[in-house]
Amino acid sequence: MTDNHTDPMSRLLKLANKVNCFYLSGFHAGECRAFVVDGQQVGLVRPDVMKELLNHPQVFQVHPEYVQLNPAFRDYAERSARVEEVLRKWKADEKFITLHGWREEYYEVRAQFNTQPLFKMDRSATCKFSTLILLLICTGLFGIRKYGVDINGYVMDPIKGLSIWLQKRSPNKQTWPGYWDNMVSGGLSVGFGINETAIKEAGEEASIPNNLIEKLKNVGCVSLFFESERGLFPNTEFVFDLELPPDFVPSNSDGEVETFELLPVNECLERIASTNFKTTSVPVVLDFLIRHGYITAENEPNFIQIMELLHVPLQTMYNHPLKRCKITANGEATEALGKV
Amino acid sequence: MTDNHTDPMSRLLKLANKVNCFYLSGFHAGECRAFVVDGQQVGLVRPDVMKELLNHPQVFQVHPEYVQLNPAFRDYAERSARVEEVLRKWKADEKFITLHGWREEYYEVRAQFNTQPLFKMDRSATCKFSTLILLLICTGLFGIRKYGVDINGYVMDPIKGLSIWLQKRSPNKQTWPGYWDNMVSGGLSVGFGINETAIKEAGEEASIPNNLIEKLKNVGCVSLFFESERGLFPNTEFVFDLELPPDFVPSNSDGEVETFELLPVNECLERIASTNFKTTSVPVVLDFLIRHGYITAENEPNFIQIMELLHVPLQTMYNHPLKRCKITANGEATEALGKV
Repeated sequence: MTDNHTDPMSRLLKLANKVNCFYLSGFHAGECRAFVVDGQQVGLVRPDVMKELLNHPQVFQVHPEYVQLNPAFRDYAERSARVEEVLRKWKADEKFITLHGWREEYYEVRAQFNTQPLFKMDRSATCKFSTLILLLICTGLFGIRKYGVDINGYVMDPIKGLSIWLQKRSPNKQTWPGYWDNMVSGGLSVGFGINETAIKEAGEEASIPNNLIEKLKNVGCVSLFFESERGLFPNTEFVFDLELPPDFVPSNSDGEVETFELLPVNECLERIASTNFKTTSVPVVLDFLIRHGYITAENEPNFIQIMELLHVPLQTMYNHPLKRCKITANGEATEALGKV
Repeated sequence: MTDNHTDPMSRLLKLANKVNCFYLSGFHAGECRAFVVDGQQVGLVRPDVMKELLNHPQVFQVHPEYVQLNPAFRDYAERSARVEEVLRKWKADEKFITLHGWREEYYEVRAQFNTQPLFKMDRSATCKFSTLILLLICTGLFGIRKYGVDINGYVMDPIKGLSIWLQKRSPNKQTWPGYWDNMVSGGLSVGFGINETAIKEAGEEASIPNNLIEKLKNVGCVSLFFESERGLFPNTEFVFDLELPPDFVPSNSDGEVETFELLPVNECLERIASTNFKTTSVPVVLDFLIRHGYITAENEPNFIQIMELLHVPLQTMYNHPLKRCKITANGEATEALGKV
């Protein structure tokens, strides 16, 4: 312990800090404001985005402590149309890099993972780009919490010891192309459960057969708060362990993976610390190595700090302003919010 | 999920909230101040304690944002003597219930788990009650972080399924007498490592033989922030799993345990939710049941909240004021602290 007094930040702590760069600096700087929709905080807005929102006072109301989607919008359709208008203008003006990746995907925005979606889904042809689609594209811009699944595929190799399968993402992926990543991972999509998503992704990404996926085990979740040029990433990943037989080799079915590689623990640590590993996937590997006894408080001087950074308090960070608001029975909170 | 919208707080979340009553309310109320010794935050002082500290301005300096042990004290011996004076007076005046348990035990006070102790140990006969002893008694009063070990002793019972050994604490224990607790637990004492302490306690508390303790596995840590009439408890527990054969029965060697009982998972959940389970030991059991796939995001509506409450950000809570202080080379920080 003496040695670490002079150099208290280990390589793994530096890595955990990098994953949580926003939690450790941006958030505490206090420059971001809660993004409130329908009386509930769904996101966090950075000063650069806030500056743009000020140009659209009919859509976004910028208050001293929070930013609110105009509560006068009567319903989902109106909200969608008005937000879409702003985002299309931003895209045309090339305001934010994250808007380059405009995709048609659906995403349910909720205040909490276990509460009702704040916006109803609408897949009708007349609403090609719903608010949900736009907010998915812009989750980074609005600091909206995202949820995903990750599977640690591992092997008790008789020679190499505990070894972990990693995937190299396809160079065609929109985010983190060509980076190393966990064996299987994916975002939670509308209409799919957590376990269901994990099983689906295991089939699509790594061709895990039915008899092997039966051993899939829920082992918790990790939460992180990363920031990049694409925005804010307050992510929670539901984690699964899957022990695989030494002779099984994953193969990709959906074109999203370039290759897979099986790495013994020590090499895996080198890989996640390298610059070509997807930063936001690091916590899943660290959590695995801690739960399996490879990273401990006796071999890692910053163990407690790292454990904390695998479970940053997003719940508290995204709940706090709400505790000071009174929400009326029909969910509208404009009056009370004004008094914050 | 729909059902949980109307009643979002599950029984397990209520339990996790109870464990972290200070994290969830007291801390955010902002009434406590950092307790700074030698330029580093080592604790947190509640208003009731602060009020008493104001009567001893030569020992404790109460600033608007923190409380500081007088930095003019030259060394360990002087600090010890001056703090002891105050505490003896409080004990004589019966100021705080926690002082009833005045014991001669040593405890190293550090700013962080992996940094050098802030106070040197002194076991000399002339210093019978060191500051360390007093601070151990008063860790609750000064909100000093404490560290311990916990072992989940479990059995893959061929009939009952996964089952967990719990201990009933001796009615003679000073804290939580007669309460149910994890199979093995103990505080970290001066001069003992984490794994060493776990093995020692496993022998003393549950008579685990050498051939079984070999399977002891590091699996992480949990952090909680509890408050009771005895004070504040910002505790971090290093967690171990130990699979035991179905025919092994733990027995106590040191008189600290009344009995042991093996409970299947469902009964164990009932037990930890009962009023006779040691509140601060609940997180270790919840963490075990999550890591082993028994509590999941699909069967527990407040899963993410609970995960956060098993890992409350003590590191951030106890580090924050320091980031705004400049510590001089010799560790004194009074000047810079004054500018906070």
